[in-house]
Amino acid sequence: MEHIKWMGDRLILLDQRYLPYKESYVECFSAEDVADAIFNMVVRGAPAIGVSAAYGMALASLRGDNLAQAAKVLKDARPTAVNLAWAVDRVLEEAKSGKIISVVAEQIFAEDISMNQAIGRVGAEIVPFRASVLTHCNAGALATAGFGTALGVIRAAKDKVSMVYADETRPYLQGARLTAWELAEDNIPVTVIADNMAGYLMQQGKIDLVIVGADRIARNGDTANKIGTYSLAVLAHAHGIPFYVAAPSSTFDLSLADGSLIPIEQRSREELTEFNGRKIVADKCLVYNPSFDVTPARYIAGIITEKGILRVPYTLSIESLTPKSL
Amino acid sequence: MEHIKWMGDRLILLDQRYLPYKESYVECFSAEDVADAIFNMVVRGAPAIGVSAAYGMALASLRGDNLAQAAKVLKDARPTAVNLAWAVDRVLEEAKSGKIISVVAEQIFAEDISMNQAIGRVGAEIVPFRASVLTHCNAGALATAGFGTALGVIRAAKDKVSMVYADETRPYLQGARLTAWELAEDNIPVTVIADNMAGYLMQQGKIDLVIVGADRIARNGDTANKIGTYSLAVLAHAHGIPFYVAAPSSTFDLSLADGSLIPIEQRSREELTEFNGRKIVADKCLVYNPSFDVTPARYIAGIITEKGILRVPYTLSIESLTPKSL
Repeated sequence: MEHIKWMGDRLILLDQRYLPYKESYVECFSAEDVADAIFNMVVRGAPAIGVSAAYGMALASLRGDNLAQAAKVLKDARPTAVNLAWAVDRVLEEAKSGKIISVVAEQIFAEDISMNQAIGRVGAEIVPFRASVLTHCNAGALATAGFGTALGVIRAAKDKVSMVYADETRPYLQGARLTAWELAEDNIPVTVIADNMAGYLMQQGKIDLVIVGADRIARNGDTANKIGTYSLAVLAHAHGIPFYVAAPSSTFDLSLADGSLIPIEQRSREELTEFNGRKIVADKCLVYNPSFDVTPARYIAGIITEKGILRVPYTLSIESLTPKSL
Repeated sequence: MEHIKWMGDRLILLDQRYLPYKESYVECFSAEDVADAIFNMVVRGAPAIGVSAAYGMALASLRGDNLAQAAKVLKDARPTAVNLAWAVDRVLEEAKSGKIISVVAEQIFAEDISMNQAIGRVGAEIVPFRASVLTHCNAGALATAGFGTALGVIRAAKDKVSMVYADETRPYLQGARLTAWELAEDNIPVTVIADNMAGYLMQQGKIDLVIVGADRIARNGDTANKIGTYSLAVLAHAHGIPFYVAAPSSTFDLSLADGSLIPIEQRSREELTEFNGRKIVADKCLVYNPSFDVTPARYIAGIITEKGILRVPYTLSIESLTPKSL
């Protein structure tokens, strides 16, 4: 099953909103179609929306649409993950030097898979033998062009992993629906828990390691990721459990000094008040639905990139990555 | 709306599984019916299942059923909340001295409301002006005979409360469905969040106080409550936010030296894998679904009872409650 499939004249996206109970696809014929698919979370995951946006630019180019306009529509689809803007800007840059945009997009797609495989190779060393690993949301094949970031590390180290605990990850249930399904398909043992069970598992000594993905990493190592990541990091810290972030270099935003500058997307009330058409919150009640949070660098044991594991002080280790790659 | 209604020959329970979208009732004619309603969470909340079990004993008595057998069936319905066994044992004890069981049950019902009102009066002092209060699960009118424990404190202090944040409380969504609805009906401002957002709110300085209920409190103050409570307590501690427990004296179990001895109920996989008939977790995946966790006494700023606020050292302050009441 290919979840991001370039057909030369259109982009076919697996509709991740309906996994695992339905395998359906959305066809995109324009940058606007891709932006809608990103906004509506047909495709989600920072690297995956970056790759999809690159194909969105390719569609705009093929149709002769205004590229600056297409870039804006795509970048505005979701604010937090920097990979989206990174991919669009790279496409524009390479187009200036005469490259065909669809070729650049295919290159970004292929590079993302290679980077994830490298992240897996690099990160496997931090996984202890018979590890019980907790992860949040979906930082897997479905969140990237393939293989995954946090799940890439787990895949690369799978012989050492005795159990993966997957937070179900409300409100969108990416952990329950996507991570658990991906790992089960790969025959990696996985147990789904509600988000509020993570602390209890740690208290019982059932978690050796936490690994999550990232949507944007500031120059000092502060990391935006799916809402709930910050709580996990504080809980891991309180229990002396190492907490790692896995992300390709396209996730770093060197223009931001720290995490307080990362924009946090607020999503609709309906994500919390309704499920499958059934109302679960009375109309009179308010809802707060931030889609991401920021984990301060001090809680992060290391950031696993395709170029190596970055450690504190992050300001130095992040700078040491070659400027070109960032 | 009365959620626990004694009719003299039967007990009518509001079916809390379908709130707030449907108001339906379950009629119980025997202790077995009441035990089923407790097991299936038609009625839930430690004090409310205690009161319901007392009425279950009244039904057994009226039918001439074996009381010891009825007591066993009721106590076995759910293992963690001690109020269930407490109410059944009290009924048996008073029946021995010739009291009519239905009268004892009605007395337990009335006393529970009085205790909650007293908890509210006693606890109101810990709520600061313009407080933003976080709560978990439902420790409200629906979880008791009426008024509530944690929500009793909030109701008593409502002029000082600017916002209640209600964790939705997966998997049963008691916070989203019950707490938010109860408070909105009382015109107390309430905002529903996913459980995984609590840490982010604390990080932003949006929470002044956490108050939760309890299912069983050991002699040293360790407190079993709905799964997720422990994570909240650790997060509150990390952010310097006071974390309070509100519970009537029927919740204390002096037979247990500490929380490690409290039995933790494990519930079915379907509570996490299905929602409203839709499957959200692939069949191959495992599920872990503990219904409660235990918060060590060291994280608890105080335990609000109808007799006053207990403080550290809990072993002494809990002992100072009169033995009779416990």
